Amino acid sequence: MNTNSFNPESLFASNVAAGAARWSGAPKYNFVGGHNDPESVPGQALMNAATRVLEDHAGLLATYNLGGSPQGYLPLREFVKAKLNDHRGMACDVDDILITSGSLQGLDLVNDLFVDKGDTVLVEEHTYGGALTRLKKKGANIIGVPLDNEGLKIDALEAIVQNLAAKHVKPKFLYTIPTVQNPTSAIMSRQRRADVIALAQRYDLLIFEDECYADLVWGDMPPPSLHAMDDSHRVIHIGSFSKSIAPALRVGYLVADWPIMSRILANKTDAGSGALEQMVLAEFCRWHFDEHLAVLNRRLQVKSEGLCRAIRNHFGEFARFEQPAGGIFQWITFPERIDTLALAPAALAAGVAYNPGPEWSTNDTGSAHSLRLCFANPNADIANEGVAVLADVFKQHL
Amino acid sequence: MNTNSFNPESLFASNVAAGAARWSGAPKYNFVGGHNDPESVPGQALMNAATRVLEDHAGLLATYNLGGSPQGYLPLREFVKAKLNDHRGMACDVDDILITSGSLQGLDLVNDLFVDKGDTVLVEEHTYGGALTRLKKKGANIIGVPLDNEGLKIDALEAIVQNLAAKHVKPKFLYTIPTVQNPTSAIMSRQRRADVIALAQRYDLLIFEDECYADLVWGDMPPPSLHAMDDSHRVIHIGSFSKSIAPALRVGYLVADWPIMSRILANKTDAGSGALEQMVLAEFCRWHFDEHLAVLNRRLQVKSEGLCRAIRNHFGEFARFEQPAGGIFQWITFPERIDTLALAPAALAAGVAYNPGPEWSTNDTGSAHSLRLCFANPNADIANEGVAVLADVFKQHL
Repeated sequence: MNTNSFNPESLFASNVAAGAARWSGAPKYNFVGGHNDPESVPGQALMNAATRVLEDHAGLLATYNLGGSPQGYLPLREFVKAKLNDHRGMACDVDDILITSGSLQGLDLVNDLFVDKGDTVLVEEHTYGGALTRLKKKGANIIGVPLDNEGLKIDALEAIVQNLAAKHVKPKFLYTIPTVQNPTSAIMSRQRRADVIALAQRYDLLIFEDECYADLVWGDMPPPSLHAMDDSHRVIHIGSFSKSIAPALRVGYLVADWPIMSRILANKTDAGSGALEQMVLAEFCRWHFDEHLAVLNRRLQVKSEGLCRAIRNHFGEFARFEQPAGGIFQWITFPERIDTLALAPAALAAGVAYNPGPEWSTNDTGSAHSLRLCFANPNADIANEGVAVLADVFKQHL
Repeated sequence: MNTNSFNPESLFASNVAAGAARWSGAPKYNFVGGHNDPESVPGQALMNAATRVLEDHAGLLATYNLGGSPQGYLPLREFVKAKLNDHRGMACDVDDILITSGSLQGLDLVNDLFVDKGDTVLVEEHTYGGALTRLKKKGANIIGVPLDNEGLKIDALEAIVQNLAAKHVKPKFLYTIPTVQNPTSAIMSRQRRADVIALAQRYDLLIFEDECYADLVWGDMPPPSLHAMDDSHRVIHIGSFSKSIAPALRVGYLVADWPIMSRILANKTDAGSGALEQMVLAEFCRWHFDEHLAVLNRRLQVKSEGLCRAIRNHFGEFARFEQPAGGIFQWITFPERIDTLALAPAALAAGVAYNPGPEWSTNDTGSAHSLRLCFANPNADIANEGVAVLADVFKQHL
């Protein structure tokens, strides 16, 4: 017997994903994903917060959920409650808040609660790639709703819902990123929010609102969240500290009423989200969140403006884009000859990583010439150089 | 239209779990779950570790996975590699190690990779309740293999495998907790480990080894892990820092060869496990792990001995049990008149929470008179009082 012959393949479950490639280091010009600004991580204040919580409460770590509710560390939920009230106009209670391991766990928990194979889900035409891959893995029927500068196009949304109703199909929810949309960075207007809620009430739709970028706004204060503007308990709201403090901290939150929360809690079988990160964030945020956010947003605005200058310098009229008023992403559309999915390997070979439009869209043809750059991570020189290299790659392929 | 009428129930996916109850505080005598000794949490050293890593590396938190591999923070994987080599005889490389959000995430990732509805999985007759609930949720056909003092009964295991083969059924894996078994606290003998591996090689079985309690041994050094003793690449190994450092820290690890690791990585879509906890643990463990473990194990041994005295004092001959040589659990078997599942609510009403045998077993009748107590969390007085209260409850119901 050859004892080295064990081969796991024949034992795999059906439909498992293809194997990942071995990690081979970050690209030189890394515009991919949602990395943030390294110099904005408040190291000293986080250190002081860690010292204080471990001085006072280390013993709590001996108990799952710090000896408290599986909904998460109470002082952090109290901060989230206050923040959502102050910044997003929401009147929720600590019992409506669940601390999650990043907003991604929020996506998983909501999808698990509502989506069976074949179920229909509405999303924005261009939307977060991680949401799309999750829904595809579930076997959902994903319908993209067209967008304009103000957000979801209400007429189009209504036509889709009516068309589904005629076929006796009710969508499980409408997934939307109203405040600093991913990838477009648009901020949905107040009127459009009111229209979306009115439509959801008219057709009895559930809204799944992802506001993980809502803290990163450097223009006018954005309108309240959909959760805040709805009085019919039909909005599930998620958010994150990944964007406002640091992505590698896996701490997000989910806001829902008890009929949904109780089911989600029953399915959150991870024995709690990381407690040290919850404790440190609770202590840090209590004293420093707003001040930190102001500094971070100023730095992001400068980086965004720098990237836009670089795009204009190196691409000229070739690149169409709008400068965002928040977030960490720049969405760019090129002429039809540019296929961003096809050109991604050539760009990567030249050291530039970006997210091709079709990975962030339900509309493959409508997004084939678009791409998303994250401007938060590279410094000004690297960003400028990276855009120049990308422009060269694109021009060579014309 | 009544805008308060939104009811999510009709939108739920099929087979969602019943809603959780609202959290109502911890019981006075808390013998349930895997909580640990609060006074053993090394608060000062964790605080120093947090200070050092945030002083040196806070900027890394701005990048998902700390700018490194999705397999986890390299210094922590280096520590795990050294620990598994020194303590468990394993010769794995950092590329064979994945840092997970607790060993529970390891269970989920392995189950997702191998188990479809209707698949057969072998487990120990008495085994971890969280593993059973996960497999049940998957719709697996769970077969319990009888145990004796040395571990899995080889004859019984072989008969089960042969019987399945006759029906053309191949089990997806054998899930086993060889070192400080949960709930029995037994440590599988070296000979039995060799026999299990030989059988697995003979029948080409995959072994899923859970060693999350293997650091908590206060008697003789336990035999090497199954992963260490197998030369045919058929063992997936998981472990945890929840037991050795603190349960509320959600940091575990999974060891597997690349054909399995690459698939698991593709399915680990959480954008990394909590980075601050990984960094702090890496820095703490490098300097203090062995010394901390020695202190923790001495304290656990004292608590275990205290609990055993309390059981003898308050239950006398009524309770049959063996004093463990490691871990945090005491498995107790009572006379047949005692139905531990039926008596759990009365015990809880008196302030005592325990885990009834049937929740930790595939053998409902064989475990109906058994229960599991976790002795790590309550202090000596509370533990003694709790056992006295439990004895009263049981006697009143006779």
